Amino acid sequence: MNYRETQPERTDLPLVVIPSMFAAMAQPLATGMRILRNVARVRTYHDFNIEPETILERCKDADIVVVIGFHVTGDLLERLGSHVRCFVFGGTGVANFIDLKRTRELGIRVCNTVHYGDETVAEYTFALIFELARSVGAMDRGIREGNWSGLEGTSLKDKTIGLIGFGGIGQTVARIAYGFGMHTLVWNSHVNAATARSLGATRIESIGELMAHSDIVSVHLPLNDETRAVITADDLDQLKSGSYFINTARAEVIEPGALAARLDRGDIKAAIDVYDKEPLPADDPLRSTPHTVLTPHVAWRADDAYRDLSRQMARSILAFCNGERFNVVE
Amino acid sequence: MNYRETQPERTDLPLVVIPSMFAAMAQPLATGMRILRNVARVRTYHDFNIEPETILERCKDADIVVVIGFHVTGDLLERLGSHVRCFVFGGTGVANFIDLKRTRELGIRVCNTVHYGDETVAEYTFALIFELARSVGAMDRGIREGNWSGLEGTSLKDKTIGLIGFGGIGQTVARIAYGFGMHTLVWNSHVNAATARSLGATRIESIGELMAHSDIVSVHLPLNDETRAVITADDLDQLKSGSYFINTARAEVIEPGALAARLDRGDIKAAIDVYDKEPLPADDPLRSTPHTVLTPHVAWRADDAYRDLSRQMARSILAFCNGERFNVVE
Repeated sequence: MNYRETQPERTDLPLVVIPSMFAAMAQPLATGMRILRNVARVRTYHDFNIEPETILERCKDADIVVVIGFHVTGDLLERLGSHVRCFVFGGTGVANFIDLKRTRELGIRVCNTVHYGDETVAEYTFALIFELARSVGAMDRGIREGNWSGLEGTSLKDKTIGLIGFGGIGQTVARIAYGFGMHTLVWNSHVNAATARSLGATRIESIGELMAHSDIVSVHLPLNDETRAVITADDLDQLKSGSYFINTARAEVIEPGALAARLDRGDIKAAIDVYDKEPLPADDPLRSTPHTVLTPHVAWRADDAYRDLSRQMARSILAFCNGERFNVVE
Repeated sequence: MNYRETQPERTDLPLVVIPSMFAAMAQPLATGMRILRNVARVRTYHDFNIEPETILERCKDADIVVVIGFHVTGDLLERLGSHVRCFVFGGTGVANFIDLKRTRELGIRVCNTVHYGDETVAEYTFALIFELARSVGAMDRGIREGNWSGLEGTSLKDKTIGLIGFGGIGQTVARIAYGFGMHTLVWNSHVNAATARSLGATRIESIGELMAHSDIVSVHLPLNDETRAVITADDLDQLKSGSYFINTARAEVIEPGALAARLDRGDIKAAIDVYDKEPLPADDPLRSTPHTVLTPHVAWRADDAYRDLSRQMARSILAFCNGERFNVVE
């Protein structure tokens, strides 16, 4: 038996199934789900397995399913839809993972989680910036190969960071940037100049203009119909020589192929955590662009985010079981 | 001819020689030295060569010598002392590089540079912390070897950073840490509790106690008679399991061998930029301690620091030539 279940004797209670997760989430999930005692049984599988047949088998008795890292669409949704009454998604941008039109038709509640990764993703943005600016990882590798010469660095103080998107994550990046003594520009369709100013940032009217005036550009947009491909090849053309481009948000907010084409010119550096196809294919052009740091969609993966994500998912389940609402996606 | 000289025809002016430097300093040095027009000739060698015989040959006509990365002691000092009237050191801790007792006896002025690297070193402290907390360099390497699984991260927000030393660099680290939402503890023999509090930090009475209460410990002490080996094996014993130890200051402030011994226990992570012997010998025990990131004494090496360092050195030379005083070491 490769799962654990809380209160397995209480078959009178609804069954929550967590069919797949990262090992690092085991502890925060177990802690978070404690509030469901005498409300729901929680059956947790402790491996990361997102094969549809495995998910289906593991969720065959579930009333509520926690969705981490897999897609609930098409045939899988039809077959789960026969008995599942609520999906709780471990993330914010649920529209790419669950067919919300169909869950509405089937009368299944969908909950997401919000702002759990604001600090974690904003911090990771600086982790990426530092690998471009100060090359710690590259020098650690070098010193072990006998290379003592070191690499030249770039300071952050007095540099300008341009943020595309200014929700919870973008605003947290701005707060941290202020601590570094940086200037912050923002582009966002929903934030006016006065609000931006109150958060220590200057609003810029177009993405291209923001790129032209920034030493570092970082993307913090959600993916939706408004933002898909909102960053164009023409915008990227405005990036200054020597500037850095960071993406911890979603690859799809950039015009397909435009980023790799811009990076191929070799005059800017980039650090990328998100891709059009994940896992990143072996033949993806980003693998061969110069001055590029690549990481495997991990910006949100840290202890604090796991704790907050787990707490929010448990609250959504508690609310569903009690006939209340929490983080319900309409 | 492997040097350039400003105003070579003005043999009536004193001669400044820069016998060795990093390539990255060429531009900021040339810019900084412009204030010496009609005051001194500046002869600059554009390679990093610290062989004593080369230094001696290059400085044989010098009135003023800019000292970057080499030692002016013993025979080299005696031979330069016959004609050099002023040494301008590209760094703060000059006592390890120039024999100040002997320069005093010889009546040679020595100038150093101060606070030029406060921001750069403080920023690098976070670059090191992030490689421990978020492993960007390691994951970039992994993804290129086909490993998509990623590494788990640790958040900085609400964590406690303990600073040993609270001068210009330590105080800058505290300012940045505040932006990350961290708590700051400081140990420093010269800062009282009220001053520490006014800078957003809590003063701790002993190094061991600071280690026991910190998630991250970072060293920002100058090296002098008071600080040599001030961090003991007993202090390091207090570091919490899972904590990080960062040193961008000087290796000699730690009891010899104590850090490698502590790291060998395997329960903490460390990022180290400074060593008892530099370049780091192939058989140094730190090369084989677990969870350790190593870089080659580069914390200060970034554009802003080079600019400020160059400006200060030029001002010291200008002051010397004008019979004034700037950054004079007593």
